Amino acid sequence: MSLIVQKYGGTSVGTVERIQAVAEKVAKSHRLGYQLVVAVSAMSGETNRLIGMAKEIDAEPCLREMDVLVSTGEQVTIALLCMALKNQGIEARSYTGGQVRILTDNAHGKARIREIDGHRIEADLSAGRVVVVAGFQGSDEDGNITTLGRGGSDTTAVALAAALKADECQIYTDVDGVYTTDPRVVSRAQRLDKITFDEMLEMASQGSKILQIRSVEFAGKYNVPLRVMSSFEEGPGTLISLEDDDQMERAVVSGIAFNRDEAKLTIRGIPDQPGVAYKVLGAISAANIEIDVIVQNVAKDNSATITFTVHRNDLNQAEKLLNQIAKDLGAQEVDADDRIAKVSIVGVGMRSHAGVAATMFEALAEEGINIQLITTSEIKITVVIEERYLELAVRALHSGFDLDAPDAEQA
Amino acid sequence: MSLIVQKYGGTSVGTVERIQAVAEKVAKSHRLGYQLVVAVSAMSGETNRLIGMAKEIDAEPCLREMDVLVSTGEQVTIALLCMALKNQGIEARSYTGGQVRILTDNAHGKARIREIDGHRIEADLSAGRVVVVAGFQGSDEDGNITTLGRGGSDTTAVALAAALKADECQIYTDVDGVYTTDPRVVSRAQRLDKITFDEMLEMASQGSKILQIRSVEFAGKYNVPLRVMSSFEEGPGTLISLEDDDQMERAVVSGIAFNRDEAKLTIRGIPDQPGVAYKVLGAISAANIEIDVIVQNVAKDNSATITFTVHRNDLNQAEKLLNQIAKDLGAQEVDADDRIAKVSIVGVGMRSHAGVAATMFEALAEEGINIQLITTSEIKITVVIEERYLELAVRALHSGFDLDAPDAEQA
Repeated sequence: MSLIVQKYGGTSVGTVERIQAVAEKVAKSHRLGYQLVVAVSAMSGETNRLIGMAKEIDAEPCLREMDVLVSTGEQVTIALLCMALKNQGIEARSYTGGQVRILTDNAHGKARIREIDGHRIEADLSAGRVVVVAGFQGSDEDGNITTLGRGGSDTTAVALAAALKADECQIYTDVDGVYTTDPRVVSRAQRLDKITFDEMLEMASQGSKILQIRSVEFAGKYNVPLRVMSSFEEGPGTLISLEDDDQMERAVVSGIAFNRDEAKLTIRGIPDQPGVAYKVLGAISAANIEIDVIVQNVAKDNSATITFTVHRNDLNQAEKLLNQIAKDLGAQEVDADDRIAKVSIVGVGMRSHAGVAATMFEALAEEGINIQLITTSEIKITVVIEERYLELAVRALHSGFDLDAPDAEQA
Repeated sequence: MSLIVQKYGGTSVGTVERIQAVAEKVAKSHRLGYQLVVAVSAMSGETNRLIGMAKEIDAEPCLREMDVLVSTGEQVTIALLCMALKNQGIEARSYTGGQVRILTDNAHGKARIREIDGHRIEADLSAGRVVVVAGFQGSDEDGNITTLGRGGSDTTAVALAAALKADECQIYTDVDGVYTTDPRVVSRAQRLDKITFDEMLEMASQGSKILQIRSVEFAGKYNVPLRVMSSFEEGPGTLISLEDDDQMERAVVSGIAFNRDEAKLTIRGIPDQPGVAYKVLGAISAANIEIDVIVQNVAKDNSATITFTVHRNDLNQAEKLLNQIAKDLGAQEVDADDRIAKVSIVGVGMRSHAGVAATMFEALAEEGINIQLITTSEIKITVVIEERYLELAVRALHSGFDLDAPDAEQA
């Protein structure tokens, strides 16, 4: 009998009515003969309500107690979902993270799962019950309640699937799958039937917000087939799995990811000396500013130029730091620009196809879009361009790599 | 170092501001050098909010899941209280019932505590921490979450005090102690400094709603000194404990309890035969109707009359049953009356004083109040009277037994 782990997020269980709709979906899978473990998030709005009360008491509340507090959100959902399942005639049992021994480290608020003891769940499954587990939470070795951080319910589902050797882990969201790019930008974007873990990771890290990066990493590590599906509509969704044998038939590029949350900083004319990159970027990182794209090159006079991107919210602080660093190092100038966007093409196919970069640059050149920065990985090429050209660039690449839906009716 | 268990109920922790006020009270006791364990209820309104969601799904929701659901109420309070304590500079740790191994049977919704493992709490206390425990909940042998039923937070506090051999268990409520009678009826009612467990039990079972009966029984059984105090005002409250040596100096009667929730049923002219009381009352009990006062006597013709009281909500059903029983037994008639009230005098002093009943009946007779039923226990005499004389009767007994506050200013 196939075992499936399903995960329903906050909007999917946002009201009592929505929870009842989820129960119907679960009941349907159960009647098809699947063994089912269901991980759920807190009802949407609930976590923020709880955090709000905590903040009234303390702007920076104790992390241990924060976990005790917010973990109640999922606990409410599991109880209500089990009641709704029983109403559908399905035997079900709810468990908190601690009850099914989702053992984590003790990093409150951002704990990592170490181990799951699946025995209790397996006993319920054998007895024909649906098991409903609170997502996003666990407990440490001393039995303290921990949470995995926001969005951690995806990780709970994947970890459960790995521990129970489930046949598939289905993540139900408000979209019906992973798309070749954002359909709001490209009307002819298409749902992908399949995508690899690596591709999904690159898409996610480039701004595709469908799945938490950690849960995809986790699924890849334990080879848990992951399926993104809509909790509102029927449909096969997108299966995320290891590369399979038919990759030769696949498109070279699977999708176009982009984001406009970043800003670019450049420091020019740094007298060349060993460890210059460390001196510049180390100081930025030390201020807890995350750095994304980094490019360094050396001018004719041997002075170095370093360009990197940071989140726009961090731009002011990073610019101040960089000006100080420039002074210390005797660099010529510092440039900041927050009107940039990042566009990436992602696809395992590009490994075995030459000329992908050339196709990309050509498509952009034809639209007269200037490329400011380029970085590449094995299955991704990223460019930084002026923000105002973002939509144009995404559309150009989407058709340039033959990703447009075949006929206009689908648009 | 003295160990005190404190319990704060729903209205005491009804808002974030109230929780902060409780934290101040706890911090004050901590600074006085006491070791402290604090049991708390859900914020007032929260339990009803949770039950409301469950009822939307199922009019009779699964009891196991109901416990998973409502136990989140106290879990929210413990977290917020610990945050507020830390804000006061007090180290504190919160625990759910399951986390400190409040082991119960598996009667979901009305579980009974079997055992508490105090080791974890003792370790925290030794480290100078205040321990905050979710009231009203525990877990069974299989780790399922259970609740003790409404008002069970008092029981949690007493059970913790017993397990930890605490010096005192302080129950904070919205009144400043136990009174000789309801101050709304007798303006010169006085707060009692002390009362015995037995007296408190009689008061509670006669309608004084300050403490849950079960928690008083529990405290008596394990001899845990219990103190009822106000969470809104300063003051010594009322200490409930075993009889002490200075009982000779005590008033003969400690308090006057009353209630008007009951109705009276009489079945007359039952042909006398063995087991008549069982036939009448067994059928009522079998319908899950609780019977309070029972009086039986036999007329000259050897026919029996049985009179008993039930809750007014049960009167209609009980009357119907009784009419059927009367027919079956060949009894003459059935009478129902819901305009009655019950008044009791309570006091361990009456054991060693003759004539207490006479004083009671005299006080009532002087006001022209007719007594319909009388029952007595070792430390209580209860009469049933017409409801309209209730206040008059309570006031007459309050002065008749010298319970009025000494001067009018206190009134």
